[in-house]
Amino acid sequence: MILLDGNLTASAIKKEIAEKVQRLIAEGKSVPHLAAVLVGENGASLTYVNAKVKACEEVGFRSTLIHKPENISGEELLEIIEQLNSDPSIDGYIVQQPLPLHISEQQILLAIDPAKDVDGFHPENVGRVALGLPGHIPATPYGIIRLLDHYGVETEGKNAIVLGRSHIVGLPMAILLQRNEYPGNCTVTIAHSRTKDIANLCRSSDIIVAAIGKPGFVTADMVKEGAVVIDVGITRLPDASKKSGFRLKGDVDFDAVAPKTSFITPVPGGVGPMTIVSLLSNTLIASAKR
Amino acid sequence: MILLDGNLTASAIKKEIAEKVQRLIAEGKSVPHLAAVLVGENGASLTYVNAKVKACEEVGFRSTLIHKPENISGEELLEIIEQLNSDPSIDGYIVQQPLPLHISEQQILLAIDPAKDVDGFHPENVGRVALGLPGHIPATPYGIIRLLDHYGVETEGKNAIVLGRSHIVGLPMAILLQRNEYPGNCTVTIAHSRTKDIANLCRSSDIIVAAIGKPGFVTADMVKEGAVVIDVGITRLPDASKKSGFRLKGDVDFDAVAPKTSFITPVPGGVGPMTIVSLLSNTLIASAKR
Repeated sequence: MILLDGNLTASAIKKEIAEKVQRLIAEGKSVPHLAAVLVGENGASLTYVNAKVKACEEVGFRSTLIHKPENISGEELLEIIEQLNSDPSIDGYIVQQPLPLHISEQQILLAIDPAKDVDGFHPENVGRVALGLPGHIPATPYGIIRLLDHYGVETEGKNAIVLGRSHIVGLPMAILLQRNEYPGNCTVTIAHSRTKDIANLCRSSDIIVAAIGKPGFVTADMVKEGAVVIDVGITRLPDASKKSGFRLKGDVDFDAVAPKTSFITPVPGGVGPMTIVSLLSNTLIASAKR
Repeated sequence: MILLDGNLTASAIKKEIAEKVQRLIAEGKSVPHLAAVLVGENGASLTYVNAKVKACEEVGFRSTLIHKPENISGEELLEIIEQLNSDPSIDGYIVQQPLPLHISEQQILLAIDPAKDVDGFHPENVGRVALGLPGHIPATPYGIIRLLDHYGVETEGKNAIVLGRSHIVGLPMAILLQRNEYPGNCTVTIAHSRTKDIANLCRSSDIIVAAIGKPGFVTADMVKEGAVVIDVGITRLPDASKKSGFRLKGDVDFDAVAPKTSFITPVPGGVGPMTIVSLLSNTLIASAKR
């Protein structure tokens, strides 16, 4: 069993990005600039956004955090989006989800300039990925693809199953895995809440990507010997022994599953850091196109 | 076995569209207008474009055929696209594929205004379909979905396999079949040229959509009793006994497969007419948004 180490891989990619930033500075060019919009005080959202800002600092990007109170109106948020779209100093930005219920995430998403949508959530970017055209690849699936690439995991002709059909992970992940390039060329099955006999489908899969947010859902009996297991789940479970009061648990029963696999991602330290580094890569690409 | 009759279903939908056109006329509103751009003299392309123009006439749409010689330059074709984009009298248009090799299909596709892209090939439309947002659904998958709907074919929780990952049929078909609505909620597998043991995967599928362009590829031994079989293939095979010199053959060995199925589409008269009627529906929607 080989651990697909997201921290290590993300560090290597961040080092490359940092070197590119140094070259940009040496050439007198402007430094990539990522902005993050955060609404409210959701603990997980705060953690994620802070990690993104910190990652920007590590590679030498400019970063701007726009933190607004929970009661901001949809119109006010749209105005911020329009300012970010028209601000030439911003290469890319993200609007951290979830947004408060009184704001339409869809309306906000569609207002983002696809060229600055470094999360890769805008339909134009999702469509570009589907059609194999240049565009921002949704950050989490992009991170997973790069992790597979970094470790040279074989994918061609493999049976892959993606558990979960979310717009930001499951569906784009399935699209990427079936593409006619490496990593890809998998025979991909998309499974979800209506899927019958998900255990059997997993057992016949060479690659399992679990993205359903159910802690420990994938158990050892669902995984065949030598399978590749990618765990996108990251649920906070109460844990009094931790200073934070919680621990992170993935969708995979790691301790029991890991010994059966050829490659597996840990939680934390697997997909999470790769998502953040992919945001940086998308921002770098957006900056180069400016 | 029930035949999924595309001619009959398309006729019923065309009748509804024709009634809507009559109402638009009665209300003094403008009639939907579809334009088709055809380059060169490819026999199949001529047939398809003529069928689309004829369908427009049947429902009372305006139609415009722009037929250009094989040696038109990419720049000239782009100028036509720009004219069509800016012409307020055109609700939607298609650029018949394939284009001559000296013209970039991708460049032409990206130049089409997504709002007028009634084929549903533009990345913004593909992405909107993936994200469940309003947009033009690629015409062939849209036609198949409506055929399943018209016959009330059960799809929820079914295992569906899509053979072929083309941008205009296979991939959007897979995306539609997995969506959380009817027809959809299938567990979808996307199979393609790199897929191993495609016969076995088909045998465990409740719904098979064949879109690979290999005549007679799906044989009876690959289909389980009671399966639903959708045949998107339409290959012209030489046939001296026909006036045209050819006959149309689908991807499915119809005579042997049909008795095992619960529902099956014929070729011709299955998916083809549904594709054309979906173009009309997309044009009607585009017209209503004007």
